[in-house]
Amino acid sequence: MSGTSTATPLAKRAQEYFENLQRRLVVALETMDGGARFRADRWERAEGGGGLTQILSGGALFEKAGVNTSAVWGDFDAAALSKLGGSQRRFFAAGVSLVLHPDNPMVPTVHANFRYLERGDDAWFGGGSDLTPYYPYKEDVAHFHRTWRDVCDRFDPAYYPRFKRWCDEYFYLPHRKEARGVGGIFFDDLRGDPEETFAFVRACGDTFMDAYAPIASRRRGESYGERERLFQAYRRGRYVEFNLLYDRGTSFGLATHGRTESILMSLPPLARWDYGWQPEAGSREEQAMTFFQPHEWLV
Amino acid sequence: MSGTSTATPLAKRAQEYFENLQRRLVVALETMDGGARFRADRWERAEGGGGLTQILSGGALFEKAGVNTSAVWGDFDAAALSKLGGSQRRFFAAGVSLVLHPDNPMVPTVHANFRYLERGDDAWFGGGSDLTPYYPYKEDVAHFHRTWRDVCDRFDPAYYPRFKRWCDEYFYLPHRKEARGVGGIFFDDLRGDPEETFAFVRACGDTFMDAYAPIASRRRGESYGERERLFQAYRRGRYVEFNLLYDRGTSFGLATHGRTESILMSLPPLARWDYGWQPEAGSREEQAMTFFQPHEWLV
Repeated sequence: MSGTSTATPLAKRAQEYFENLQRRLVVALETMDGGARFRADRWERAEGGGGLTQILSGGALFEKAGVNTSAVWGDFDAAALSKLGGSQRRFFAAGVSLVLHPDNPMVPTVHANFRYLERGDDAWFGGGSDLTPYYPYKEDVAHFHRTWRDVCDRFDPAYYPRFKRWCDEYFYLPHRKEARGVGGIFFDDLRGDPEETFAFVRACGDTFMDAYAPIASRRRGESYGERERLFQAYRRGRYVEFNLLYDRGTSFGLATHGRTESILMSLPPLARWDYGWQPEAGSREEQAMTFFQPHEWLV
Repeated sequence: MSGTSTATPLAKRAQEYFENLQRRLVVALETMDGGARFRADRWERAEGGGGLTQILSGGALFEKAGVNTSAVWGDFDAAALSKLGGSQRRFFAAGVSLVLHPDNPMVPTVHANFRYLERGDDAWFGGGSDLTPYYPYKEDVAHFHRTWRDVCDRFDPAYYPRFKRWCDEYFYLPHRKEARGVGGIFFDDLRGDPEETFAFVRACGDTFMDAYAPIASRRRGESYGERERLFQAYRRGRYVEFNLLYDRGTSFGLATHGRTESILMSLPPLARWDYGWQPEAGSREEQAMTFFQPHEWLV
């Protein structure tokens, strides 16, 4: 890490939790993959802070899997201010984020991110996790949502309905009138009691493997061919569109001169764009496309 | 076309020129490809105007080639105003744009766009063309720049140096510290004498095939393999990043509820992202990477 952080005690504890979670996820995901290892890239940010990027590629399960932590601080420059809004320049941001892109199109892509932010005297947590299947398995989506609902309900019964809706609104491509995937939970600007909020964020981070691993385990053996890989690459194009056009984490990272390769590790290994592509009537791909509209999954 | 345009006489003539150029380009590019035909998609914009998208894919030369025309008009909504700036709501925009993605990585991708815009009582032309090679052939780049310099010099000797620099500045990825390709010319806000300016834009449109066809002809027979296709797909990732993160035409199109498939026809058929990829020392790919920095090509 370069520069000196003026981090508050809560900022330091949050950063430590994110780094600890990253270590546990790397071990768990490597075990789950069974074919390749993560490689670690530690990096520093000239203006203050740095991070650790862990990438696994060409695995038995994952075509590309990334788990990042970073803790960055300093003052927003004029360009960042105009992009991000507000007038308060001093900031601190720490977080962990992961994106897993499996080889097998029957196994969903998944994303999770947990973060702690300070701006001037203000401080808050954000985070969430969302699933992007290629093929429609309703029980997988229900398992994912049920797991997040259960952890939310331990803290506040209002959380799941609110964070589920927020996730649907956030991971939406207005130019396609499509959801990026099937959602999950998304929350930001979580202030309230800091200890209670931090406990909720830790509970979420500790839950990630329970939400995703059973889905990956039961789908990784499903057979697929060239047709399914083509559809996966086509749908991954939407993932790229969302991340580059709308994702706030990507904007924040690029605007604050974060490390490009770490920010863009979320992009899929391979993506395609076919003009005017339409699924065959009655095909599984057509069923999948109707999946990518916000649904209530737990009714 | 839906709605009624209140287009000025110049707007109508510009639109006619762009549509005529599209017809000529479609014939010329089909002949050049020799393996596939364009298919036409005419579309209307609910708020006013529409366009014609011509797409060729799976050709003998082009993996994907698109030539669009559109003429759209109306009033910017609040979201478009906040994205595009200014306070004047009424607009008219007509233009032609093309993006050619060849199969063979030795043949460069190329883009051209010529447009006429009105906002309130203001009116201007914009346009340009730029080349994105994958492998470094200096004589191809010199031919491309020389052709554009010659057409610029017929109108104003100050044009080429200014528009070449503008192109380098515009097609730049700050988060990569790389140029998208090797540039060409880019101009916007061209007001001055409208007849003279329109004549310059027509001269540019009529020059496109001379700038590109000789390069494609002499490279399409070069041999390549899986390694070169991988590098092409990796470099096409940069093309996607530029178009979704920075391109003003893409922002304008999406903000004004243009037709998504026509706006995004510029995206490559296939792109890849490999974390932390570096070319082998001394390889042609390493030479190529140094190519993607702004250069003076005609010295």
